[in-house]
Amino acid sequence: MASKGVSVPSLRLASGADMPQVGFGLWKVPRETTADTVYNAIKLGYRLFDGAYDYQNEKEAGEGIRQAIADGLVTREQIFITTKLWNNYHRKEHVLKMAKHQNDTWGLGYIDLYLIHFPIALKYIDPSELEFPAWWVDSNRSAVAVDKVPISETWQALEDLVDIGIAKSIGVSNFSAQLIYDVQSYARHPISALQIEHHPYLVQSELIKLAQENGIVVTAYSSFGPQSFLELPSDFSDKANSVSPLFLNPAVTTLAHRYGKTPAQILLRWATQRGIAVIPKSNSKERLLQNLDVTNFDLEEDDIAAISKLEIGLRFNDPGEYLVTSPLRIFA
Amino acid sequence: MASKGVSVPSLRLASGADMPQVGFGLWKVPRETTADTVYNAIKLGYRLFDGAYDYQNEKEAGEGIRQAIADGLVTREQIFITTKLWNNYHRKEHVLKMAKHQNDTWGLGYIDLYLIHFPIALKYIDPSELEFPAWWVDSNRSAVAVDKVPISETWQALEDLVDIGIAKSIGVSNFSAQLIYDVQSYARHPISALQIEHHPYLVQSELIKLAQENGIVVTAYSSFGPQSFLELPSDFSDKANSVSPLFLNPAVTTLAHRYGKTPAQILLRWATQRGIAVIPKSNSKERLLQNLDVTNFDLEEDDIAAISKLEIGLRFNDPGEYLVTSPLRIFA
Repeated sequence: MASKGVSVPSLRLASGADMPQVGFGLWKVPRETTADTVYNAIKLGYRLFDGAYDYQNEKEAGEGIRQAIADGLVTREQIFITTKLWNNYHRKEHVLKMAKHQNDTWGLGYIDLYLIHFPIALKYIDPSELEFPAWWVDSNRSAVAVDKVPISETWQALEDLVDIGIAKSIGVSNFSAQLIYDVQSYARHPISALQIEHHPYLVQSELIKLAQENGIVVTAYSSFGPQSFLELPSDFSDKANSVSPLFLNPAVTTLAHRYGKTPAQILLRWATQRGIAVIPKSNSKERLLQNLDVTNFDLEEDDIAAISKLEIGLRFNDPGEYLVTSPLRIFA
Repeated sequence: MASKGVSVPSLRLASGADMPQVGFGLWKVPRETTADTVYNAIKLGYRLFDGAYDYQNEKEAGEGIRQAIADGLVTREQIFITTKLWNNYHRKEHVLKMAKHQNDTWGLGYIDLYLIHFPIALKYIDPSELEFPAWWVDSNRSAVAVDKVPISETWQALEDLVDIGIAKSIGVSNFSAQLIYDVQSYARHPISALQIEHHPYLVQSELIKLAQENGIVVTAYSSFGPQSFLELPSDFSDKANSVSPLFLNPAVTTLAHRYGKTPAQILLRWATQRGIAVIPKSNSKERLLQNLDVTNFDLEEDDIAAISKLEIGLRFNDPGEYLVTSPLRIFA
C-alpha cells in the first residue's frame, strides 16, 4: 500500500492523547464525494480528518471511515477525528445536544477533538432551519444577532463532553491571546489545540509562540493562503486574487526547486517543522500523497525565515470583514 | 481665568454619566509635583484626570483636586477622575480592598471611572512590597507569574463597586475584541469605556469601530506616539527612536501650518473628531492650554484620512515584547 512509505509523526496533546501532525481537511469537500474521498485518503495513509458541523459532510466522512475500518484498512484507534461546534449552539444545553448529534453522525463512538469553531455566540437557530454554508446568516439570509453566551459556559459544556466520553480532547479555533488566557484561568480540562488561519501571508508568530509555550498544539488551516478562497464568493475571492498565489511566489518556488519538493510541500513543511499540525486537502491522488509527505525532510532555518518574511497580515477568514451587516470584528 | 475661553464637550457613557472628552493624563507625573500640576491644570480648565494605582500619584492628584475645590475653582461634580486596578489585584477580594484604598487615597468620595488596567492577572503581591513602576515584576525585579483569575471575577467585582457607590462607571483598558465580546455576554453593568494605545502609528480602527458600535467610549492613550516613550528604558525608547517623531512628521506639520495649530493639536483633533477622548499631559502651561483646545476646530475628512494612513502597527505598550522573561503576548 502506498501509505507504507509515509510515516506521519504525532503531537502529544495536553489531554494526553496523540494527534497526527498531518491530516485531511474536510472544508469544501462536496457531500456526494466525501465518503469515497475519505476512504481513499485512508488508503493513502491519512489518519486525521478535520471536520465541522458547518462543513455538512460529517455523516459521509464517518461512512468513509467506517468502511475503511470494516475493510480492515485501519482500526478506530488509528483514526483521529476533529470536529467543531457551530456558532448558533454555544449555550450549554445546545452544546450537549449538538455534540451528541455530531458524534452519532460520525458513528465512530467518540470524537477525538472537539473545538469551539469561533469565539462568537450567535442566536440559536434550529438545525433543521440552518442553511449551509451558514455564513453567519439565518434561513432568510439575514445576519444572525450575536447571543450573550459567555465563552466560559461553552467551554465548561465542552469539558462535560470529556467527562461523559463524547470527546477525548477539546480546544478552540480562531481565538486570540486574551481569550486564550481567560479560558486557561478557569479550564478544568486543558485547551489541547488551537486551530487558526496560518500561511506565509498571515504568520501570527506571536500567537503561535503563546500557544506553544502554554502547551496548546497549533493546527494551521488554509496553509496555501489565497488558494483556499479563490472558489468562494467575491468577498473572499477578490482578496485572494489581489495577491500572488503562494504556489507561484518566487520565495516558495525557489525552495521547491532547491529541495526537489512541490510548492505545497514547502508550505506545509514550513509549518510542520515549527511543530504545527496541518490539514490540507486535494482532489488529486498524487498531491494527496505529496501533502502527506511533509515531515520527512528539513528546511534550513534561513529558508523558514525567508518564507515567514512574506507576512503581510492578510487574513482571509475574518467575519468582521465579509459580514458587513454584522459587527463581528473578532480579530480587532 | 484662562479656562473660560476653552469649552470641552462631554461624552455620554453607557452608565449614563458624562465624561469630559479631553483630560489630563497622570502617567509619569512625578509624585512631588503632582498636586501643584493638577491644581494648575484645573485653573487652566482641565476637569478630567486619568490616574492609575501603577502611576503612584493618586494621593497627590487628590490633594490638588481637593485644594481646587476648597479654593472654589470647581465643585466635586465638575471633576471626573479615572483610575485603574493593577494586575496583581484581580481577585474579587483584592479588587474591593484596592478600590476602597484607592478611593480613600484620592479622597473625593467616589471614583468616576474605574478600569481594569490590563486583561492579565498576576499573582498577588502585598501593596507594601510592590515596587514602582511595577513593570510586571516583584520586589526582586523578577517576573511575576500569571495568576488564574477569570476576567469575569474581576469584572463582577467592579460591578459590585458600582453597586456600593465606590465607582460611578466601570470599564477596561488594553482589551481586544474577543474579550470585550465575552465581557459583554455577562456584564450586569455596561462597559462604559475602553482605554487603548491610539496614535497615527497604531490606529486600531477596527477595534475602535467595534467599541463605538457597542456604546463603549474609547479613550486614547499615548496620542503623540513615540513621544511618550523616549524617556523610558531602552526596551521602549529604542523603538520610539526608530521612527520619525509625530511632531516632526510632514503629514502632521503640513496640517499644523495649514490649520494654524500645533502638531499636538492636530494629533489630538484627529482623535477627538472621531469621538475619541484624549488624555495628554504637558509640563508647559502654554501647551496645556493648547492641548485642551482640541475640539473647537474641524479637520477635513481627507486630512483625517491622511493622518490615519501613517499606520504601521507600531505598538509601544505590549508586555509580550518588553518583558522577555514573561510570555505575556496579550495582543496576539
